[in-house]
Amino acid sequence: MHLGKEEFSVVNRPRSSQWTAIPMEEALKIVYDAVVPNLTKTVPVNLNRTGFVLAEQIIATHPYPQVRTSVKDGYAVIATDGPGPKEVITVTTAGSITDIVVRPGTCCRVSTGSMIPEGADAVVQVEDTALLKHNNVEELVVDIKTAVKSGTDIREVGSDISIGQILLEKNCVLGSAEIGILAASGRRHIEVYRKPKACVITTGNELVDFTADDVPLGKIRDTNRPQLMALLNSNGFKAIDGGIVSDTRKHICEALDVAFKFSDVLVITGGVSMGEKDLMKTVLQQDFGFTINFGRIFMKPGLPTTFATGKWRTDAQRFVFALPGNPVSSWVSAQLFVVPALRKMAGYKYFEHTVIKVKLTESISLDRRPEYRRAWLDFRMFQEATPVAVCTSKNQLSSQLLNTRGANLLLRLPGRTEEKPFVKEGEIVDALIIGPI
Amino acid sequence: MHLGKEEFSVVNRPRSSQWTAIPMEEALKIVYDAVVPNLTKTVPVNLNRTGFVLAEQIIATHPYPQVRTSVKDGYAVIATDGPGPKEVITVTTAGSITDIVVRPGTCCRVSTGSMIPEGADAVVQVEDTALLKHNNVEELVVDIKTAVKSGTDIREVGSDISIGQILLEKNCVLGSAEIGILAASGRRHIEVYRKPKACVITTGNELVDFTADDVPLGKIRDTNRPQLMALLNSNGFKAIDGGIVSDTRKHICEALDVAFKFSDVLVITGGVSMGEKDLMKTVLQQDFGFTINFGRIFMKPGLPTTFATGKWRTDAQRFVFALPGNPVSSWVSAQLFVVPALRKMAGYKYFEHTVIKVKLTESISLDRRPEYRRAWLDFRMFQEATPVAVCTSKNQLSSQLLNTRGANLLLRLPGRTEEKPFVKEGEIVDALIIGPI
Repeated sequence: MHLGKEEFSVVNRPRSSQWTAIPMEEALKIVYDAVVPNLTKTVPVNLNRTGFVLAEQIIATHPYPQVRTSVKDGYAVIATDGPGPKEVITVTTAGSITDIVVRPGTCCRVSTGSMIPEGADAVVQVEDTALLKHNNVEELVVDIKTAVKSGTDIREVGSDISIGQILLEKNCVLGSAEIGILAASGRRHIEVYRKPKACVITTGNELVDFTADDVPLGKIRDTNRPQLMALLNSNGFKAIDGGIVSDTRKHICEALDVAFKFSDVLVITGGVSMGEKDLMKTVLQQDFGFTINFGRIFMKPGLPTTFATGKWRTDAQRFVFALPGNPVSSWVSAQLFVVPALRKMAGYKYFEHTVIKVKLTESISLDRRPEYRRAWLDFRMFQEATPVAVCTSKNQLSSQLLNTRGANLLLRLPGRTEEKPFVKEGEIVDALIIGPI
Repeated sequence: MHLGKEEFSVVNRPRSSQWTAIPMEEALKIVYDAVVPNLTKTVPVNLNRTGFVLAEQIIATHPYPQVRTSVKDGYAVIATDGPGPKEVITVTTAGSITDIVVRPGTCCRVSTGSMIPEGADAVVQVEDTALLKHNNVEELVVDIKTAVKSGTDIREVGSDISIGQILLEKNCVLGSAEIGILAASGRRHIEVYRKPKACVITTGNELVDFTADDVPLGKIRDTNRPQLMALLNSNGFKAIDGGIVSDTRKHICEALDVAFKFSDVLVITGGVSMGEKDLMKTVLQQDFGFTINFGRIFMKPGLPTTFATGKWRTDAQRFVFALPGNPVSSWVSAQLFVVPALRKMAGYKYFEHTVIKVKLTESISLDRRPEYRRAWLDFRMFQEATPVAVCTSKNQLSSQLLNTRGANLLLRLPGRTEEKPFVKEGEIVDALIIGPI
């Protein structure tokens, strides 16, 4: 890194972008090829592991249930013994065991989940019995009123889970169901993929922190940083706050150098377009020796989205997503590139956003560039076989933060052609699911 | 509360349930009518507010942008001045201001987001200009090569957001987009609904903590508690761990009394069926004076799901979901009742799970009871207009924890009738979305 190089003179700047706007598919492929699953680590099993991805297969080491177990509250009997009065010779409740053996003419009172004693081979539910004789404390004789087949309402040893069965596959994303299965497995520690560490930095002389009391004329509150950090957090990745950096080469160099120390991934907004203060690509290339894998994408919004990779001091691989400064562009670009990349690094097998077919509620003029339009799914108003999408606003200018509001979809609209200059109300298009629905 | 009452004698127990199994719709209505949005609280705006619900409307108190702002990197000109050479009399970059006025024959170099000086009424992008004269440091004269209309590439004051505009509606759920909008608003504190506090307790003499080294014969690891706590946590509600409680009236009383102190909602598993150790309903009614609003539901799994309400010591309203002990039943019941109830208390307007139409990949025999079958959406294999659902397993016994694995849907299957004993492969049915898709 060469800190403190002089700023460039504006008179030498190129007057059109030197970066080819590559197709979206090519950009995604470059990112997905660059990022690989992180190293793994061993962590104790606990309920805070949701969102982590297993780096090993979990195999059952015990049968489940471990003893023959009743499915119902009732009486364990010998099936061939048939209906009629039976002496209640013992009782099991969930958690208790017995070595008393059930013989013809006798039965054992059982509860859901309790052990079936030796001899018995079926359970008659309590609803199908009557109490014939008791001593005020205990049942002595019950009437079994129905015939049952051998095996009725008994869970055999290993019938739910047998030894050696795969409980959870490698690369399985842990949710609440999987936490329960891990708890059943008896495992105390598991191998999971480390989650990547991502640092969010915003650049721009015009920015003041959003908590500022006053905003001087010409300045604006920084909304990108809290928004992108919240985006990463709500996707399960703890974002590191890299702060606001002013548009000078020295300050950008310093901020990146610190951020690289702590983070695998840098998410930067601003400084990537054609403005005279847009120094990000230069800094990444000249000061850090990073490769700019792409510097523009033929998409809307997010044209100047930039992706750089390189090795920082310790030879550790670092990934930089340098996103446009416009609040909508940065949020959409982060959804499209950063979230899937972080998921892939965290071990997700399906790291891309799920794509569904949705029906449009309005006609939309297509842009020259393929467009990702903010919308929400409306399952509540329309109970149709194809979900319905409603755009957050008619006007989707990339400066208008409000059109991200409530969006849980990005409509993936194709670029305009002469044959197809617009999509019509009622037409079915692809949409990426980007939030809870 | 009357602690220490004697246990019941088994000889007096009823031999069939005294509780009518009410229809699902009725059960849901009872729960939704009982729970109301919590009190609100004022919290600082920060990026950890995702998942909270606004208890007030957020109104814009400043226009956005606050000054006329360039949409492009280029030159601010007077539109009627037309193409041709213009003297560069000043420069604005994002964040800087100027009081120099643009007059015919002159222009101001601007960047995206920078202030448009007085006099200018349009921007010509840098790509449509050429540098004619410079002094090696600064531009002196540029050639404007295209004519532009007045207003081109200028964001007028308040064009994105005008004063008084509604930025966020009351009852809006905060996501990353909304965090950005809050940051833009200049608000430092906001009014949100308190999230309800929920405590998870499992009951059963058969249970040992899942971290136990050994499991004695007849006992099992408690999977319900970690699973349900993870479920609440992953829905944004911090679950309190109420531990394992043995099946004695005294211990249940003590555990509930402690839990009521800290929690609005109790989620208990076990002790609600026909077993001789199933004391939960009795304890709630007799020891705490609570009302059992329902004690059975005509559904599968989860028949004995119980919902009780009452006032605890301090006259505070408390809600108890006493769920079946079977791991699948408790997880499904919690999804169906507890999660929506907590969402309603947290101020969600749409607190129920979203219902979509899905196409079945297999035929399923219908049960006498309406059934909630675990499945996952398969958007990846089938790019059809109606999403496709795959059942997690053929055998969906409520003891088989493994059939919750990977589920992000609950198929809502109707009860069997003579006319309709099964649903067929390819048929379209309703499904509740219960996890990330």
